[in-house]
Amino acid sequence: MSSPTILFIGGHDPSGGAGLQADIETACAHNCRAVSLLTCLTTQDSRDIQHIYPQDSAVFEAQLRLLLQDIQPDWVKIGLIGDLGLAQVLLRHLGVLPLVIDPVLASGGGTTVAENNLVAFIRDHLLPATALSTPNRFEARRLTDCADTEAAVERLLVSGGQRVLLTGADEATSDSVRNRLLWKDGSREFRHPLLPHRYHGSGCTLASACTCNLALGLDFEKAVRKALDWTWQTLRHAEHPGRGQHLPNRRIPVE
Amino acid sequence: MSSPTILFIGGHDPSGGAGLQADIETACAHNCRAVSLLTCLTTQDSRDIQHIYPQDSAVFEAQLRLLLQDIQPDWVKIGLIGDLGLAQVLLRHLGVLPLVIDPVLASGGGTTVAENNLVAFIRDHLLPATALSTPNRFEARRLTDCADTEAAVERLLVSGGQRVLLTGADEATSDSVRNRLLWKDGSREFRHPLLPHRYHGSGCTLASACTCNLALGLDFEKAVRKALDWTWQTLRHAEHPGRGQHLPNRRIPVE
Repeated sequence: MSSPTILFIGGHDPSGGAGLQADIETACAHNCRAVSLLTCLTTQDSRDIQHIYPQDSAVFEAQLRLLLQDIQPDWVKIGLIGDLGLAQVLLRHLGVLPLVIDPVLASGGGTTVAENNLVAFIRDHLLPATALSTPNRFEARRLTDCADTEAAVERLLVSGGQRVLLTGADEATSDSVRNRLLWKDGSREFRHPLLPHRYHGSGCTLASACTCNLALGLDFEKAVRKALDWTWQTLRHAEHPGRGQHLPNRRIPVE
Repeated sequence: MSSPTILFIGGHDPSGGAGLQADIETACAHNCRAVSLLTCLTTQDSRDIQHIYPQDSAVFEAQLRLLLQDIQPDWVKIGLIGDLGLAQVLLRHLGVLPLVIDPVLASGGGTTVAENNLVAFIRDHLLPATALSTPNRFEARRLTDCADTEAAVERLLVSGGQRVLLTGADEATSDSVRNRLLWKDGSREFRHPLLPHRYHGSGCTLASACTCNLALGLDFEKAVRKALDWTWQTLRHAEHPGRGQHLPNRRIPVE
């Protein structure tokens, strides 16, 4: 059987921890074929994003058109969007394809990378078109303008995509990280031991691994469980080549 | 032993055959860690490059500075540069690191991606700083302004880098492809059976594989031979997800 093709859309991270490199390495590890478009270049190191440079939306639309005329992806994963004009292009062209969104609203270091108009557009137009979204607790609250995470998730499930993977590493309070897959009439909880460092690109890795597993035909629960297990392994074997956060090791085989 | 870190500098190709994706996938296959900077975004499919968009050189320099303050690469590979200002930034910051240059001057479809002033700068300033360059026959002639390939290579060896891998797939005339590694007082020839299709990204794959093998500590001859063998395997197992050229399959293990 030939490998599924996944279109990855997001930003470029020079340090290689996050963004497009996380997507491509995750696809490689899962024996999926990647095609990609970059929404933004960034000035970024393994500590934090300093600045994002969104691409011109007309150029981006030309790239997307040309790519889709050439290669038909089986699934699409969207990460950093960066700008309302780019989000509008995505909705125009990708509404019919099965879609995973990792709603990146701030860097791990706290720098905002989505203005309010983009946040509203993601919530009102992109999330309803998704098969799965992967917000962390902060993102769930900001997307819905709710102070309480549980209320935020309720609102995402009513207005948003079919399934929400609420990740918990950003606000872990015990010795384990609790991630929850939620859908309209059910949920499933996954726990993994909390690891000792800060990691640059763990969220990108997880969302990409979910997308690969879905493209390979796994059901949602199995796709998420396998993605969480593998992502945890990439963090357990993380490397520290720079001065900032640890970087996931995505050369770890998928079991 | 921890994996060597390679800084890849080049363009982004949405189809995933060439450019940064070729670099990252090749690094993955060789168990090397990639960091990267993008010189250009492109409008490109698996047939040809339609347009390149070089990044602002001041932004590029800021990205490069920040990255080098954070992570020290063991080797550097440069592919598509696209613009004289970017080439000048590269020379300013990378002159002391071991360097492989794939002097990309035109796309596989024939579109020029280097103006004459950039070609001259590569020849006069970047190639003399390289450990290895990987021109094809057309690029060797254009770099040196020689009509004859043999004369071009002589000139590259006098004025240019320490070693030249002259690739032959662009002008193969028999049922095998002849690639030659040349240095000031010697040369070594490698032949591989000619494969039936056109491939998008074979040159990027080869140059990246050479860089990985050098970063892993192989000598030049062994690094090049292993890189040629593996690249040939990625082409033999190439996939054809689009309407244009075949794309190398870099998920093939390195033997």
